[in-house]
Amino acid sequence: MVMKEFNWPVRVYYEDTDTGGIVYYANYLKYFERARTEWLRHAQVGQQELVEQEGIMFVVKSTQIDYAAPARLDDMLRICVTIEKLGRASIAFLQQAWHGERCLVTGRILVACVSQTSLRPCPIPAHVIAKITSCYNK
Amino acid sequence: MVMKEFNWPVRVYYEDTDTGGIVYYANYLKYFERARTEWLRHAQVGQQELVEQEGIMFVVKSTQIDYAAPARLDDMLRICVTIEKLGRASIAFLQQAWHGERCLVTGRILVACVSQTSLRPCPIPAHVIAKITSCYNK
Amino acid sequence: MVMKEFNWPVRVYYEDTDTGGIVYYANYLKYFERARTEWLRHAQVGQQELVEQEGIMFVVKSTQIDYAAPARLDDMLRICVTIEKLGRASIAFLQQAWHGERCLVTGRILVACVSQTSLRPCPIPAHVIAKITSCYNK
Amino acid sequence: MVMKEFNWPVRVYYEDTDTGGIVYYANYLKYFERARTEWLRHAQVGQQELVEQEGIMFVVKSTQIDYAAPARLDDMLRICVTIEKLGRASIAFLQQAWHGERCLVTGRILVACVSQTSLRPCPIPAHVIAKITSCYNK
Repeated sequence: MVMKEFNWPVRVYYEDTDTGGIVYYANYLKYFERARTEWLRHAQVGQQELVEQEGIMFVVKSTQIDYAAPARLDDMLRICVTIEKLGRASIAFLQQAWHGERCLVTGRILVACVSQTSLRPCPIPAHVIAKITSCYNK
Repeated sequence: MVMKEFNWPVRVYYEDTDTGGIVYYANYLKYFERARTEWLRHAQVGQQELVEQEGIMFVVKSTQIDYAAPARLDDMLRICVTIEKLGRASIAFLQQAWHGERCLVTGRILVACVSQTSLRPCPIPAHVIAKITSCYNK
Repeated sequence: MVMKEFNWPVRVYYEDTDTGGIVYYANYLKYFERARTEWLRHAQVGQQELVEQEGIMFVVKSTQIDYAAPARLDDMLRICVTIEKLGRASIAFLQQAWHGERCLVTGRILVACVSQTSLRPCPIPAHVIAKITSCYNK
Repeated sequence: MVMKEFNWPVRVYYEDTDTGGIVYYANYLKYFERARTEWLRHAQVGQQELVEQEGIMFVVKSTQIDYAAPARLDDMLRICVTIEKLGRASIAFLQQAWHGERCLVTGRILVACVSQTSLRPCPIPAHVIAKITSCYNK
């Protein structure tokens, strides 16, 4: 499966930086999640509705992040989302934070679909799978 | 009503600072809330239990904060909590962030007791009022 | 002096919410600052350049925030910026967070211009004042 | 090299949770960094002094995090720090977040020593290496 890339712009504000003068490393996880949320929304999937109507939510199971270069205040970043594997109950994402032509941070994020009450894994609903593939299949 | 002061130590970490080299201003609201939470816990009131057993939670209705001087990485702050008014459905807090002998930040925080589902105001349970007054009355 | 209003859209993500199911109260200060930053940028003033070229930065001196109603995951908010007073070394902002026709949060934010090294107040550079008035004067 | 484990307690506050009712996944990176900072401080190494006196700081180069189970409001966690490799210009940490007898989150964090101005790698000062080994060698 080869899927289309999705890009989301993120601006760096004071809230994102630390006293080292660069974006605090944990904040790229926020940027990555914003982009995944918009990736879902672009496929017509709303997370609030998933919780309310189906009692499920997506939770992060594992992350591998490499920090190659820092971003700074006022930088406009491009956060890139592609999926490497669309599983039955999980999605493996490849994500990157770009500043101009330079890839600053690369991450592999494994996200699982769980029941909101038990937090146990459950299958991604068929209509969600359908929306994702119809939107992003090449 | 004059009530005893409660103090809670907070260390400044990288996560709290910004590229200006100082603690990001919004983070004092986190420090203040940590201290209010420990102030409640010290009076034997657990917020998770309030939600689970009584369906209520405390939410912030208004804040007035004055920033007199900045804190920096590694500073050990003392966050001070006193109540100015213990109302039927709200509590007015006076809070300060101290670094050594210097008061860096002063805040007045009005907190309301609300139903978790409707977010409508509701009376603070009598046992909570009793625990607070028994713990903090001078 | 009556100045034009500036609006900036902010989407609510998981990072912004808390276990009460609503946007964590301190995060409106981040939203307000994003909007002030874009308000400055819209007037052609870059904060990173102010630091690098003039050694000055804007810091928040005081805030008064009223929380009327909560925002939730996926809400699209409109953050509104107007200035009430453009002083010699400070700016008094009125800011609001709107969800549709409803004003959720109102804030008055006093921001001072300071030297980055001493953190002492210093006059807002004339070219910054000129850019702001040329952009926002009615 | 086998090194002694260091533990640091972290309480979960509202600021740490999200609308899913659990600790927001990026916040474990903050917990891990607090523990590494205290691990350094316990060995008599202050990060602010490293910046001011030697112009160096530690930055995170890569992270691998596995999320096995969630933490919730009011939980008291134990954040565990051990080093797997003390290199010439980097340190490989193994970190865990425990709630009682249960390991919730496991992370491998690679931290590099860099010049604050150039952000280029530079050797960890000998006195820092000496303090770490004297404090943590088994």
